[in-house]
Amino acid sequence: MCVAGCHEVVMRTLSRRGFFKGAAGAGAAFAASALPAPAMAQAASFTRVIDLTHTLEPHFPTFGNEQQVWVDKILSIEKDGYNVNKWTIIEHVGTHMDAPSHFTKDGASADALPASALVLPLAVIDVAAKAEKDPDYQLTPDDIRAWESANGRLPDTACVAMNSGWDRHVGTPKFRNADAQGVMHFPGFHGETSEFLLKERRVQGIVVDTLSLDHGPSKDFKVHLTWLPAGRWGIEGAANLGQCPPKGATIVVGGPKIKGATGGPSRVFALA
Amino acid sequence: MCVAGCHEVVMRTLSRRGFFKGAAGAGAAFAASALPAPAMAQAASFTRVIDLTHTLEPHFPTFGNEQQVWVDKILSIEKDGYNVNKWTIIEHVGTHMDAPSHFTKDGASADALPASALVLPLAVIDVAAKAEKDPDYQLTPDDIRAWESANGRLPDTACVAMNSGWDRHVGTPKFRNADAQGVMHFPGFHGETSEFLLKERRVQGIVVDTLSLDHGPSKDFKVHLTWLPAGRWGIEGAANLGQCPPKGATIVVGGPKIKGATGGPSRVFALA
Repeated sequence: MCVAGCHEVVMRTLSRRGFFKGAAGAGAAFAASALPAPAMAQAASFTRVIDLTHTLEPHFPTFGNEQQVWVDKILSIEKDGYNVNKWTIIEHVGTHMDAPSHFTKDGASADALPASALVLPLAVIDVAAKAEKDPDYQLTPDDIRAWESANGRLPDTACVAMNSGWDRHVGTPKFRNADAQGVMHFPGFHGETSEFLLKERRVQGIVVDTLSLDHGPSKDFKVHLTWLPAGRWGIEGAANLGQCPPKGATIVVGGPKIKGATGGPSRVFALA
Repeated sequence: MCVAGCHEVVMRTLSRRGFFKGAAGAGAAFAASALPAPAMAQAASFTRVIDLTHTLEPHFPTFGNEQQVWVDKILSIEKDGYNVNKWTIIEHVGTHMDAPSHFTKDGASADALPASALVLPLAVIDVAAKAEKDPDYQLTPDDIRAWESANGRLPDTACVAMNSGWDRHVGTPKFRNADAQGVMHFPGFHGETSEFLLKERRVQGIVVDTLSLDHGPSKDFKVHLTWLPAGRWGIEGAANLGQCPPKGATIVVGGPKIKGATGGPSRVFALA
């Protein structure tokens, strides 16, 4: 989620002291510095690689509907002996990371997240049928509990991904799905779910296959405002989650290691 | 390797038809389209993550000694409710990929490399002691054979990394190690080695912990001109290879999935 179109509501929400105190409270026990260093209880193994990354190009759809990536050829084989481009990138575009510092003054930037926080057991929650019926669907704590009934309790330091099937809309207006008033309609996590994952589980990262951790019509951005200030990261705009098993895969988040980055385009794989 | 300081020699080399024909010949049997789809013969497993990526910042040393990355804050918590930066990046900077298209007119760009070509068995060749004595050291086919004597034949579709220990110089002038005439002195692969890995083995990627696949004083860029036109990729500026076992780890190359990229900053991990 990013840039144009929502900073007024975020500022309004930030100024509601009660809400923000609540969010900080939820995160306090899991502040970035207090996060357990993820350690693997047992060896992870895999036989195949699933690319969870969309190809990024200048017309990739964005939250604010403004271009956020430019690629300019500055050296060429014909003239210079080799090809080189210059990129201009507004960080939150494409399949990308939201680092804690995106929504917090002193939160960890993308480069400060340790590698061990970016390679995690992956739980994929399938809400595609629900999202098909209701594009504003929000993944609930009950969806998490249903996954746990089938697959066992979420492992500590897991990454939880919402598979809403929305990646298939990436080349069409349905990806933003804006109505006549400009309000977008796509699925996301419910604010109660990010609080649940912070308070009741010890999850490290969340992933959506849409433009925002919060669903399209969100006015309070509660998921962003609870999850990121708690020292956690999110991935927006993931692809191919439908190819992943519900449990047993490992997500590898090739996030940007650029000093001070608040997130940015990432290469994300699942090893299954 | 990139940008200023070498395009004249590359052009000169490209115009030497005999050499280029030789390079194309070496690559022909392994052209990008003819590369075997890497498949895992057996499950890979791991218990720890090693970050092979340096933190990229505006003053990161570059081949041409010119700044190639700029980070500008364009939105802030205080004013806008959240933080966002704009990046301007010349592709070949930091820990980064050289895609085939960096040195070929019709070679695969970074986004066109399949995920399965970016997650590979990692062989780490330790030449740190040799590089300590001779900063112009070039990793030879004999170094590969010595590794094989101890570890068995290089697996098909492997990635071969040169650990010269040069990553420890990254914050100092020793990383470029330019002499009074501006000629750089750091280790790289020998041109005979890239030909050996193409003709005698079926290796998919190579990695160096220095600024170029070719060693610092190279005038013919033979490694670039044999390896990349054969549909292979390279990683330059890797970190922490000394923490990897010589065999048994898996490299995960989080290369940029930006349309038409000739390579670029990548997040690279070893899973061991």
